[in-house]
Amino acid sequence: MGQLKGGEGTSEEVPGVVRPISVKLVVEVLRGIAQVDFMPSAVCGLFFVAALFAAGWQYGLYGLLGSAVSTAVAHGLGLRRDTVEAGLAGYNGCLVALACAVFLGPGHPATVVVAVLGAAVAVVVAAGVGTLLAGRELPALTAPFCLVATAVTVAAPGFRRLWPTGAGPAALPVPAAGGTALSWEQLWHGFFANIGQIFFMPQWYVGLLFLAGLFAASRLAGAVACGGSAVGLLTAWAFGAPAEAVGQGLLGYSGVLVALALCGVFVAADGWSAAYAVLGAAAATVLTPALGAVTAPFGGHAFTWPFVLTTLLFLAAVPAVPRLRRA
Amino acid sequence: MGQLKGGEGTSEEVPGVVRPISVKLVVEVLRGIAQVDFMPSAVCGLFFVAALFAAGWQYGLYGLLGSAVSTAVAHGLGLRRDTVEAGLAGYNGCLVALACAVFLGPGHPATVVVAVLGAAVAVVVAAGVGTLLAGRELPALTAPFCLVATAVTVAAPGFRRLWPTGAGPAALPVPAAGGTALSWEQLWHGFFANIGQIFFMPQWYVGLLFLAGLFAASRLAGAVACGGSAVGLLTAWAFGAPAEAVGQGLLGYSGVLVALALCGVFVAADGWSAAYAVLGAAAATVLTPALGAVTAPFGGHAFTWPFVLTTLLFLAAVPAVPRLRRA
Amino acid sequence: MGQLKGGEGTSEEVPGVVRPISVKLVVEVLRGIAQVDFMPSAVCGLFFVAALFAAGWQYGLYGLLGSAVSTAVAHGLGLRRDTVEAGLAGYNGCLVALACAVFLGPGHPATVVVAVLGAAVAVVVAAGVGTLLAGRELPALTAPFCLVATAVTVAAPGFRRLWPTGAGPAALPVPAAGGTALSWEQLWHGFFANIGQIFFMPQWYVGLLFLAGLFAASRLAGAVACGGSAVGLLTAWAFGAPAEAVGQGLLGYSGVLVALALCGVFVAADGWSAAYAVLGAAAATVLTPALGAVTAPFGGHAFTWPFVLTTLLFLAAVPAVPRLRRA
Repeated sequence: MGQLKGGEGTSEEVPGVVRPISVKLVVEVLRGIAQVDFMPSAVCGLFFVAALFAAGWQYGLYGLLGSAVSTAVAHGLGLRRDTVEAGLAGYNGCLVALACAVFLGPGHPATVVVAVLGAAVAVVVAAGVGTLLAGRELPALTAPFCLVATAVTVAAPGFRRLWPTGAGPAALPVPAAGGTALSWEQLWHGFFANIGQIFFMPQWYVGLLFLAGLFAASRLAGAVACGGSAVGLLTAWAFGAPAEAVGQGLLGYSGVLVALALCGVFVAADGWSAAYAVLGAAAATVLTPALGAVTAPFGGHAFTWPFVLTTLLFLAAVPAVPRLRRA
Repeated sequence: MGQLKGGEGTSEEVPGVVRPISVKLVVEVLRGIAQVDFMPSAVCGLFFVAALFAAGWQYGLYGLLGSAVSTAVAHGLGLRRDTVEAGLAGYNGCLVALACAVFLGPGHPATVVVAVLGAAVAVVVAAGVGTLLAGRELPALTAPFCLVATAVTVAAPGFRRLWPTGAGPAALPVPAAGGTALSWEQLWHGFFANIGQIFFMPQWYVGLLFLAGLFAASRLAGAVACGGSAVGLLTAWAFGAPAEAVGQGLLGYSGVLVALALCGVFVAADGWSAAYAVLGAAAATVLTPALGAVTAPFGGHAFTWPFVLTTLLFLAAVPAVPRLRRA
Repeated sequence: MGQLKGGEGTSEEVPGVVRPISVKLVVEVLRGIAQVDFMPSAVCGLFFVAALFAAGWQYGLYGLLGSAVSTAVAHGLGLRRDTVEAGLAGYNGCLVALACAVFLGPGHPATVVVAVLGAAVAVVVAAGVGTLLAGRELPALTAPFCLVATAVTVAAPGFRRLWPTGAGPAALPVPAAGGTALSWEQLWHGFFANIGQIFFMPQWYVGLLFLAGLFAASRLAGAVACGGSAVGLLTAWAFGAPAEAVGQGLLGYSGVLVALALCGVFVAADGWSAAYAVLGAAAATVLTPALGAVTAPFGGHAFTWPFVLTTLLFLAAVPAVPRLRRA
């Protein structure tokens, strides 16, 4: 998850190896899906697509559609080739299209139209946010997805073709109810669901497939994701989050991404960055119900805002912390 | 709509031509009103003032008051002369004063006081936002107006002299109701109202006067404004916005400003920037009910936030898009 | 209130003078509390601690705890020594811990845990915000406190150990009710309470103790704080704020901080900056009920957001205003 840049890209192609254009595009689209978890790996992307299809064939199609539209728009606008080839054009569009499917219903024609428009706009937003943050040496993360998905889901009830049913999503937040003691099943379901909820999916086996993709791309990333998920579970349990929500991964998904970003991806992995990532993952876990409450009165969702805000502030602090080194 | 800068301004005065100070100030105040639509033209400002008086004499007076107060404060603080002379000090104050008149009622003495205070603060906010964005080569647009007007209108119910009546404006947003099929009258009313709503005015003939002012200043700007209005109508209709709101210009006014900014004012006008402006105007149209929903629970309004947010991100992306050239 | 920086700090120690480490740490912790009002003075900090204990012994302990945890974490992360020694590491943590005590109840064990975690995270957030704003030569002010305290208090109802009682804090804002004519008692109570509410304390004698601490550190600062409080009272009264809230200092606390920041701390004190501070304090007073309304639907609080937003914009504008000089 870096920023998209314009200009002549430096191709990573090995000279003499000719690949058909379609294979190259497929690799870019798959990497686009894998980059949601920072992995520039088409194999990882295949695992992720399999996970989405395991959750529902429409989700698999929407995820591919979003990454494909964004990648195509990035080529059309002439964005830097190396970033597009690394999959950095696709991940926001993938998540935008998935959010449209999950929150507006995958079966309506207008959902497809707004998913395509959203994935196209996400490319421009990613280039804009990336340029603004590049001067700070900060990555855009999933901020472009969060911006576009928030806009679309909050706007949807204002458009009758996007919101065919009557009741609106806006409501004042209410205090948590229900038991807080985690059953063994909720514990291990939640462990995997924390990884699946990055893509909005609550099923433990879908999370397991995502985790397998992470391990396929990088054993360190797989281990750090497990650590982030564990910190999320522990923090949520310690402060008394409702056990049912914890078991569906609704508290810990941002912690997984924060841990990946702060220990290995943007900060060199060592003992200090591991401790830093634990603090960050705990902070993001507390921030998650806060952003759920902030967005509830206007019918929004927390999405990965807790991850984006926590990681940007923790990364911005790195130059002031001599114990940490940028990766 | 650029940023205000300090220091010695380079006067555009022709040497030898002496104009009385009062005429010079009147020109600056009129340009301040025209700069709401990016036009540094006193003639355009005259059309705009005529449009405001056509909507109601109080609106004409408040618009002039806001631009005059802001321009005077800018002179008092010693801001750069060239920007003040181009009308860049006045447009935010003009809109702040108009917003006070429209949302707090033009007839109360406290409305005049808060309009004057708001127009004064808007100059400082514009200088601050302008300085922050200048490093990115981004303009402040109407962000200063949106910030001050949001603050004043949301604060107003907390002050009994600003909000004499009992009921508050805060409410949870509800899904759109009413028919979505546009009548011929709603279509052409909406086309002009999109341009008038930039100044909060829903009457088609007021929008027509604003459009005449745009054409008087620049035929390109007039044509682009028409294109932005058409994109707004089409997007709103395609996703099923309520026909009544479309006919009052409540969906498309940000699209008009986005189109002007992205095709001619800040990006050189050509085929690529026209396509870019279409994408931006469509995005701003979807964003408009989203920001209406976001601000509803605390009694706020979308104002031109959809224009500001869309344009800033689309302009920030321009350096990454080789197809586009800054104007 | 500057930003925290990494690297080798330049110690302000006088060579040859050996102080025991514990005394040095106590001085840093006290300065951390004094820096809430910009004062790098342990004597001022002693007055402030006395004020907190006068309001309630738990508040005194929480304030000390927050400043101590933040200062310790800053040392652990290896942040610049000179800023930590000036107390710049502690003030956000002090306010975060106090906010936890005031809004979650000081007596629950989970409140202590979240106050410690929040004070630790506030150090990282302060380093991040400080680094981001340092390029603009802008200070972080209490933005780190506002961010962390908003996150914790809004998240709290989502965690059953942090929010043991049933009713939630979220509500739609309603227009102000009650009389607006200030009694003599409300007037002078409000004058001191404006200064105490910076630390959430409404008692006039607590505010008087804070004011005494300010005068002990700097007679200019004490006088400017009095001026800011008076502007806040006058603005709130002029627009018709409810007299009861004015008497508890709920309208004017941000004005006190704005006046300090804009006349003496960050802008050289003179007639121009005094006028600038009056405008800023008036703007922050209007902004205070606005941010109360914005945060009400999700159960948040205005905290010192009005001070932070007003001061950042007014300071960002300083380079454009030739009349003003940075301190």
